[in-house]
Amino acid sequence: MNALNIAEYTHTLGLQAKTASALMARAQAAIKNKALLALARLLRENVQALQADNAADLARARAAGLPEPMVDRLKLTPAVLETCALGCEQLAAMPDIIGEIIGMKQQPSGIRVGQMRVPIGVFGMIYESRPNVTIEAASLSIKSGNACILRGGSEAIDSNRALARLVALALAEAGLPEHGVQLVQTTDRAAVGQLIAMPAYVDVIIPRGGKGLIERISAEAKVPVIKHLDGNCHSYVDDPCDLDLAVTVVDNAKTQKYSPCNATESLLVARAVAPAFLPRIGAVFAEKGVEMRVCAESRALLATVSGAKLVDATEADWSEEYLAPIISIKVVAGLDEAIAWINRYSSHHTEAILTTDHRHAQRFLREVDSASCMVNASTRFADGFEYGLGAEIGISTDKFHARGPVGLEGLTSLKYVVLGEGEVRR
Amino acid sequence: MNALNIAEYTHTLGLQAKTASALMARAQAAIKNKALLALARLLRENVQALQADNAADLARARAAGLPEPMVDRLKLTPAVLETCALGCEQLAAMPDIIGEIIGMKQQPSGIRVGQMRVPIGVFGMIYESRPNVTIEAASLSIKSGNACILRGGSEAIDSNRALARLVALALAEAGLPEHGVQLVQTTDRAAVGQLIAMPAYVDVIIPRGGKGLIERISAEAKVPVIKHLDGNCHSYVDDPCDLDLAVTVVDNAKTQKYSPCNATESLLVARAVAPAFLPRIGAVFAEKGVEMRVCAESRALLATVSGAKLVDATEADWSEEYLAPIISIKVVAGLDEAIAWINRYSSHHTEAILTTDHRHAQRFLREVDSASCMVNASTRFADGFEYGLGAEIGISTDKFHARGPVGLEGLTSLKYVVLGEGEVRR
Repeated sequence: MNALNIAEYTHTLGLQAKTASALMARAQAAIKNKALLALARLLRENVQALQADNAADLARARAAGLPEPMVDRLKLTPAVLETCALGCEQLAAMPDIIGEIIGMKQQPSGIRVGQMRVPIGVFGMIYESRPNVTIEAASLSIKSGNACILRGGSEAIDSNRALARLVALALAEAGLPEHGVQLVQTTDRAAVGQLIAMPAYVDVIIPRGGKGLIERISAEAKVPVIKHLDGNCHSYVDDPCDLDLAVTVVDNAKTQKYSPCNATESLLVARAVAPAFLPRIGAVFAEKGVEMRVCAESRALLATVSGAKLVDATEADWSEEYLAPIISIKVVAGLDEAIAWINRYSSHHTEAILTTDHRHAQRFLREVDSASCMVNASTRFADGFEYGLGAEIGISTDKFHARGPVGLEGLTSLKYVVLGEGEVRR
Repeated sequence: MNALNIAEYTHTLGLQAKTASALMARAQAAIKNKALLALARLLRENVQALQADNAADLARARAAGLPEPMVDRLKLTPAVLETCALGCEQLAAMPDIIGEIIGMKQQPSGIRVGQMRVPIGVFGMIYESRPNVTIEAASLSIKSGNACILRGGSEAIDSNRALARLVALALAEAGLPEHGVQLVQTTDRAAVGQLIAMPAYVDVIIPRGGKGLIERISAEAKVPVIKHLDGNCHSYVDDPCDLDLAVTVVDNAKTQKYSPCNATESLLVARAVAPAFLPRIGAVFAEKGVEMRVCAESRALLATVSGAKLVDATEADWSEEYLAPIISIKVVAGLDEAIAWINRYSSHHTEAILTTDHRHAQRFLREVDSASCMVNASTRFADGFEYGLGAEIGISTDKFHARGPVGLEGLTSLKYVVLGEGEVRR
């Protein structure tokens, strides 16, 4: 397609999505759940066929010389497909939030005013490699009563097309509109530029992928973006604290898994507890091969830990999201410096305080300007499922609309409903 | 100032606002209320001085040949200033919503997860003529614990400067940071361009003024905008309905005041009740001098109304926001056509159904895609004060973040708070 055709094509997708969104919005909960269960069944019935389509993507990726970890992310194994099917079933089992009315109160004029939760309309999802995101996005779209337009990576186009065909079958089986979920069929990059600049048709864009993709989309989008940038999360070991608890939690926050955005990347320690705490956590990190980027004061206290990989921290380290067995460590005077430090260097994702002092805990919760603020818990808990949201659209590092882990509610808006008996304005 | 100086100046304002916002956010409710009451007192103490400063703006406006209604909007009369002072006192009397924690629940892991309401940080308000908006914005900023940067119209710069000096005195008296509320001191338009493109410092922009201003700002802003565009509101007279009630409510919705955005601009009438209803409402409109832009079917039914100003409606009429004694009138088959018509032509601000049928009422509330959906009430009720919000930032015609009348909550975000006892992720 040339540029003109792509503009026309995405415009058509937008108009179809907008039209379908009205039908998706008014679909009964039972109908939406029927589509989700049909999709789960179709995924299980088509494991072999899907793997055949997936093989085309894998062959192309290997021929193009993609590194094997990247090829891995493209794979639709039976296990990946089963996880997708289970996800659809879990969504079907969740309560429906559309139509919920909150806060209905009578006003002095006599009218009763409340808010009704309704779908936001149309969302666009832009993602890379992993084709299973096609099913995640489609199922969230169905459950939340939104229409969506999906744009996956060109490297997964055969898998995505095959998955989208199953989604279409599931929609049809339940009697939902065929354009409720649409996959962008062209791999031309210009389609992304169009998709993020159609405020008449698309209410919100959700990018999933590397920081480069998300920054580019945020900069160019003409519609709201639910975006997730860095997770430079801090754990702060306060004075006073329970040292055993602090060692256990900080160890988990850093080493339970290195790649997630909610892993702790920076450790702050109150000066008064540093001599007792740092050698203990240092020994844990040394044993697990975690490199420590340290301030001068931490270095002195960690010098005696055998096998410790110590590197002097540079200014850049304090803002870094390593996603690796590396942690920056800084001794601070106490709570005030810890809060100021976090508000300066954090990416405002998730921070935890380890403390036994009630007032310190309250101040940390109130004054730290991050999407998740925790007391005596591992930063690794910052996650839609751990928070009981049932499903996760993404984790927002913005403050507008949705902040932190975003569940189905992030794809809805609240409109006012007013019930009167002939009241007029005086 | 030249362009470089203006960029530097707005950057400085942004940095100062950001720094002040941390102090505003943690200010106690009593301190914020003290500042609001001090501001109310200062406004009353300085009525004469403020009128002297205001006189400079008025003289300049008249010299520039501004039409008298425009000059009127610039005036700081004792009545306008008293309304400002009362507004501050009302805000001081309202409960503080900052720090409120909602939905705290224990999760299977043992952690307790809830959400805490916190200020959004820094907002920018961009407005025209009326200098009293300076006080409205400053007082909302203080109550909500946000810092703000205010950019008023150049025609009101002397009045705005005088008001901002009082705000600074009130902040100082209560011990709040001097940069909590800042007025842009230059009247250069380039400052607006800068202000709306500093995502590092400004979390949301609120434009107040004509459609041109709001469209320009929305198109160019690099930060979220709480925007209010058209109010093309509909009243739909359903079959069946209480005709007396319908006449009373539709009359009020159109004629109680012509200029507000929540006045009804378009009347839809179900075919079955049109012969009984239209002549009655037509007589009311004829008596009040309201011009009717009618479809052919309405024209036939209104032909016998003496003194009726009937004009054939053009396609453009169905989308028009008149803000004047003009209403468009259309006969529809019934509920389905009414809903489809509204979703096509409305600006998604406010729509009302007049009906006695429960199922019709429910469908209208659910299926009409507007910020406020009403049953048997005047569209004129779509207003922050009538909805019990206590204060109104504006009315949002967007679906993202805030929709419909926006109260103090629109200037806040919800962050997650997690309370643990040493839990770790498995």
